[in-house]
Amino acid sequence: MAEEPQRRRLRLTLAYDGGRYHGWQRQENASTVQGVLEETIALITREPVRVVGSGRTDAGVHARAQVCHVNLGSRIPVEGLRRGLNALLPPDIHVLGIAEAPPDFHARYGARCKLYEYRIWNHAEPDVFERRYAWHVRRPLDTAAMEAALGVLVGTHDFRSFQSAGSETRSPVRTVYGAWLRQPAPHRIRIRLEADGFLRHMVRNIVGTLVDVGLAKLGLAEFRNIFEARDRRQAGIRAPAHGLFLMRVSYEGGSAGDSDSSS
Amino acid sequence: MAEEPQRRRLRLTLAYDGGRYHGWQRQENASTVQGVLEETIALITREPVRVVGSGRTDAGVHARAQVCHVNLGSRIPVEGLRRGLNALLPPDIHVLGIAEAPPDFHARYGARCKLYEYRIWNHAEPDVFERRYAWHVRRPLDTAAMEAALGVLVGTHDFRSFQSAGSETRSPVRTVYGAWLRQPAPHRIRIRLEADGFLRHMVRNIVGTLVDVGLAKLGLAEFRNIFEARDRRQAGIRAPAHGLFLMRVSYEGGSAGDSDSSS
Repeated sequence: MAEEPQRRRLRLTLAYDGGRYHGWQRQENASTVQGVLEETIALITREPVRVVGSGRTDAGVHARAQVCHVNLGSRIPVEGLRRGLNALLPPDIHVLGIAEAPPDFHARYGARCKLYEYRIWNHAEPDVFERRYAWHVRRPLDTAAMEAALGVLVGTHDFRSFQSAGSETRSPVRTVYGAWLRQPAPHRIRIRLEADGFLRHMVRNIVGTLVDVGLAKLGLAEFRNIFEARDRRQAGIRAPAHGLFLMRVSYEGGSAGDSDSSS
Repeated sequence: MAEEPQRRRLRLTLAYDGGRYHGWQRQENASTVQGVLEETIALITREPVRVVGSGRTDAGVHARAQVCHVNLGSRIPVEGLRRGLNALLPPDIHVLGIAEAPPDFHARYGARCKLYEYRIWNHAEPDVFERRYAWHVRRPLDTAAMEAALGVLVGTHDFRSFQSAGSETRSPVRTVYGAWLRQPAPHRIRIRLEADGFLRHMVRNIVGTLVDVGLAKLGLAEFRNIFEARDRRQAGIRAPAHGLFLMRVSYEGGSAGDSDSSS
């Protein structure tokens, strides 16, 4: 879509429960968050719209604060647009905020840092209220061992071992700013990873391997070897999508949403 | 169903997400928790079964630990039955435990005490992850005022004001052992009521009126007047079902499940 200079650029922050969606990215014959959002904006502004997300979340992955941008010809005030969208969107997608953005703000290329959280329900029995939002791991996990393994990931590294096969096109080097494990309540484990970017399935592949450490199938040295092997085939299984939450996307200038480059 | 003396009596504890069900009680043309449970037990034991719950939960109400009993001819070991049921039940119903019970154990008549929790998401914006499990109240609630009103309820009282119309058959006197409000995290309010029994819709009618206190539509004296009026028409709206959780049912002798009477 050619960009028309008179269009304004808006930055949207939204939460969604990914359970019903075939991921973020628009698809022809499947319901996706981007698709539903574009259709709903178009219902209000009566113009073709294309939103650009900070990145694609996979089928079943949730977001507490996904960021995207959109160019609009409509002059509708942002709060009116936000209320209109929330009135029309399904209850599992909610627009938290809309702001006018500089014309060079780009939700994807301008993203400096992303924070993901992965949730595990660690109990012999499933919890019916956790079933949609946490991976059920039945055997007790050694969280101290998992925390030690998480520490290996912090810093600038080649994360090829945790990249999904078939997606090795761009550089596999990423900088992980932080990797934490916490237990807000008994049997509930939350793993957070903050990085300048993530490879395809990187969080879920890390968590799958980390759970092998927690189950003592892997020692810390083996985890380190897998990481340093730069070979996806050595890592553990991929953790399921429904435990993963995109928590935050940060841009230069913080919430003002500056960016350095445009598409 | 005539009781056959050779049948054993089992006590079951189960959790369910009530969102998909038309309540606990079996109905002809609607999916209910009792109905699904009976059908699933019968699949395993190949005999007609009738379960008796501690009480009916309404459509949409959840349970963390509902208790019921059932008479079975089958000699299947309880742990085998439990595993079989959990393998066959849908993911929103889970059997936490099964125990052999004395023949006079009765899940309904033997229940001495029940604990309910009601959850409120108190924020201007909805939270997509709370939408199934908490009532969304947009305006800020005065939780101190609500706590004061909760204190009025403790003790033995006529709760007719909080009983749903059309259900005034049995005694409306109940003993509330405890009434608490807590905020485990910002914007999350949990109200707990423990009593020897509850009238139809009692918790939801109380919570609806309590929210009027929290919004300063009602003062403490007015709340007390409504309570003492013994007239349902004076109380506030009924809080929605999806915020309500049956947390625990207690019997004499605790988990052993003794009871004093039988049907």
